[in-house]
Amino acid sequence: MTDDSFHVFDTTLRDGAQREGINLRVTDKLAIAKLLDEFGVGFIEGGWPGANPKDTEFFERARTELDLRHAQLTAFGATRRAGVAAAEDPQVAALRDSGAPVVTLVAKSDDRHVELALRTSLDENIAMIADTVAHLRDSGQRVFLDCEHFFDGYLHNPAYATRVVSAAAEAGADVVVLCDTNGGMLPDDITRIVGEVAQATGARLGMHAQDDSGCAVANTLAAVNAGATHVQCTANGYGERVGNANLFAVVPALVLKRDMDVLPEGCLREMTRVSQAIAEIVNIAPSTHQPYVGVSAFAHKAGLHASAIKIDPDLYQHTDPALVGNDMRMLVSDMAGRASIELKARELGFDLSNDRDLVGRMVERVKDLELAGYSFEAADASLELLLREELGEPVRYFDVESWRAIVEHHSDNSHLSEATVKLHVKGERVIASAEGNGPVNALDRALRSAMEGVYTALANVHLSDYKVRILEGSSGTAAITRVLIDFTDGHSDWTTVGVGENVIEASWIALQQAITYGLLRQGYPSLQA
Amino acid sequence: MTDDSFHVFDTTLRDGAQREGINLRVTDKLAIAKLLDEFGVGFIEGGWPGANPKDTEFFERARTELDLRHAQLTAFGATRRAGVAAAEDPQVAALRDSGAPVVTLVAKSDDRHVELALRTSLDENIAMIADTVAHLRDSGQRVFLDCEHFFDGYLHNPAYATRVVSAAAEAGADVVVLCDTNGGMLPDDITRIVGEVAQATGARLGMHAQDDSGCAVANTLAAVNAGATHVQCTANGYGERVGNANLFAVVPALVLKRDMDVLPEGCLREMTRVSQAIAEIVNIAPSTHQPYVGVSAFAHKAGLHASAIKIDPDLYQHTDPALVGNDMRMLVSDMAGRASIELKARELGFDLSNDRDLVGRMVERVKDLELAGYSFEAADASLELLLREELGEPVRYFDVESWRAIVEHHSDNSHLSEATVKLHVKGERVIASAEGNGPVNALDRALRSAMEGVYTALANVHLSDYKVRILEGSSGTAAITRVLIDFTDGHSDWTTVGVGENVIEASWIALQQAITYGLLRQGYPSLQA
Repeated sequence: MTDDSFHVFDTTLRDGAQREGINLRVTDKLAIAKLLDEFGVGFIEGGWPGANPKDTEFFERARTELDLRHAQLTAFGATRRAGVAAAEDPQVAALRDSGAPVVTLVAKSDDRHVELALRTSLDENIAMIADTVAHLRDSGQRVFLDCEHFFDGYLHNPAYATRVVSAAAEAGADVVVLCDTNGGMLPDDITRIVGEVAQATGARLGMHAQDDSGCAVANTLAAVNAGATHVQCTANGYGERVGNANLFAVVPALVLKRDMDVLPEGCLREMTRVSQAIAEIVNIAPSTHQPYVGVSAFAHKAGLHASAIKIDPDLYQHTDPALVGNDMRMLVSDMAGRASIELKARELGFDLSNDRDLVGRMVERVKDLELAGYSFEAADASLELLLREELGEPVRYFDVESWRAIVEHHSDNSHLSEATVKLHVKGERVIASAEGNGPVNALDRALRSAMEGVYTALANVHLSDYKVRILEGSSGTAAITRVLIDFTDGHSDWTTVGVGENVIEASWIALQQAITYGLLRQGYPSLQA
Repeated sequence: MTDDSFHVFDTTLRDGAQREGINLRVTDKLAIAKLLDEFGVGFIEGGWPGANPKDTEFFERARTELDLRHAQLTAFGATRRAGVAAAEDPQVAALRDSGAPVVTLVAKSDDRHVELALRTSLDENIAMIADTVAHLRDSGQRVFLDCEHFFDGYLHNPAYATRVVSAAAEAGADVVVLCDTNGGMLPDDITRIVGEVAQATGARLGMHAQDDSGCAVANTLAAVNAGATHVQCTANGYGERVGNANLFAVVPALVLKRDMDVLPEGCLREMTRVSQAIAEIVNIAPSTHQPYVGVSAFAHKAGLHASAIKIDPDLYQHTDPALVGNDMRMLVSDMAGRASIELKARELGFDLSNDRDLVGRMVERVKDLELAGYSFEAADASLELLLREELGEPVRYFDVESWRAIVEHHSDNSHLSEATVKLHVKGERVIASAEGNGPVNALDRALRSAMEGVYTALANVHLSDYKVRILEGSSGTAAITRVLIDFTDGHSDWTTVGVGENVIEASWIALQQAITYGLLRQGYPSLQA
């Protein structure tokens, strides 16, 4: 366990959510919070209760639905308005009543922002900070204070910026966080200024870096070097404009390169998984070239280095990928392709080490399918079905004659989605139709309706998630649609993939495989060819 | 013009090309070299002549086809083999005869790599460096020497790593480049080691940083702070594994934040264009969140900021985007307040500053719609249609009675997508059907078929991109589908958004708006309510 002497503070759900293209629903926020907790961060900033209905709902549901092992939930908000007592400001009251044990207050520390944006006096801004910190402290909450635009402010008026830090600390803020809100600082600026502020105020300092200069990770580390003991980061560096300091680069640098014990035991190994899972939830393709966690982060082009890597991989990698839950990969070489198919097969329970031909055929099929737009990284169930096919044990429970999906919008504004499937199940021709809330749902129901008499355990498996990605065709060619479908039987989950020129066709392929795999899991013997 | 006192050295064509997924043809390399020259770099490393036919051809064609205004072409290669005179090593001869005025030699500087990978003695490695540098110098070429794995080597055996630097400088290398080949260093390591090496050797030093710790830009700047006067970077940070120091982050930091005159006059303004053009050539989608040049780099979302941005944009941006050829953009989101709606409206050509009620109503509608899954950040056209509706000038060219889309998979494995729409266009009821390569394409065609007699200019607008995002699919609730559709009339582009429980319904909403907006752009007057 980590103690309070160093804070890993995550603000993915608040500042990270400001990234262009991210639009989180409350259930997304709850799922991300759970993952961040698994990664072992100390604080999760959940949002601004009272500022919008979504954040208010998040804090309400978090009380009952989030069972955090490592992290404390923090609420974000502003200091009281000018000329109003903190206790009487409804925005401050929402923070106080949020149920969050910690509140992060944002305050102006650049005198120009106080005058132009806040439109109040420099003294009143100080009073707003001191009053709000003291009020929340008196109500039993721990308070951190974010000094917005701190570094620009310090360069313009160091005396006032320093005064803000002192006022917050004196009023009882546990940490005063220096924010490079516009993200334009370079590490040497940070080292100098954080050092000066630490000396001038004696306050416990934190760092919040934006990445507009491409230096957010380095700026965060520079602040730690200069004495900061609290770092604010976001998963995968999500955030407004260019983004924030990337949690998954700052934390491993501290742990692996500076021997700082800032995560609970065993958590660093979860990093790659957590990073990718969060990318899935926000539906941004994981960056293949992200430090530490990207699929290319430990990928070596075969050639010059290959033989030496075999002798001592540590001569060619800055850290052991296993420490962050990632893997070394060799590219381009057919051997590497073969090895990964063998490894994957072993994971799935097949030993292929004595069947070079089979491995070769699988490598070719996977390569061809990936060229056509398939991706088996997440779709283990599709890969297993493919593998069983190559092993001469194809899994088959039904044959498809034809299917049809119809979506209608009627003149009374109602919608109808309806599907019909024509199957052959154990020698019998079956026709079934069903309605659904969309065409894929209707197809799923029609398939079940056609087979549930024969395969009764089908009732135990159902669709749990559905993702669509459009793969850009190069100019002139049609776009390819890739669909991933997650199924569950309540105990385990599996994913299948379908690709096609239209979304319904791609969905059908994935759906059919997901149901086939589900029947296999339920123990039904495959039909003979 | 810049002089020789500081080198901006680009290695996109050599080290950048090692990025997973990049595969450059000779014409691509020539086109990228031309763009890098327009950006004003001093040196363009073109590849390794003699090592592969593509690079050899590149140097041959460059002699006649490349007319560089600012840059010198440099050839990359290795020191002579052990036990062979430099003049008699064919690899060295290829460098000498390449026609390149400058050669960058790579050499081992980590004693472990000399022994394990090169399999020669430490003394022979020094001789290989000295001989090869002297031979190329004597042949009239300028020589830079890359010390591979320098920092890891220095930490392991500082005396030997330092000896390599001195040997190269004494043999006549103009610059000795310290390479963080594994990319694991942090800026404070770089500052210390570069300073120590500069003091110990007196050599002119350069820096080559890989980005495995997410600190390549900062590491390059740290080396400059410690005395390096030559920086090796790649366009957009392309490179092996995570990538190299990003040219388009290192150069603007030096120019804009450290007042170093490292680019020819006027070149920095080309940066965004050059970055995007190179991304097009290598066929990697430009990173929207890249510092300085990304479309999101100066995009503002938070409602909190928007009111003050109107007063003084420089308070909210780390540099003027025009200096790097980029633009500020305002985004509309559920966090946005009144000021961002006003600013957005002004961008779209409406002055709302005197209509507080209207702005309030728009903020409420946008908030409600975003809660339901809409996102207007990218969908300017949908936002404009919404705004016109609130202004009492709704845009309408047709009324929809009903529509239907059918997707069929036949027993011969063929697919059919067919749609029927029933519309009222200028008082007439029209029924039209069409087939397509998918249901959305079929709906698009049916809509056009129903209206093209009345709105002939509809032929000028067409769908150019289509994106689907599933917003929630867990815990039994229906998933919400968000569809973004891009349309173009060949001169300009617009985006609309649709949301619904099923993908066809969501697509229909976006499609209908995209066509409505297209007709507006083509100058048709809206029908009266």
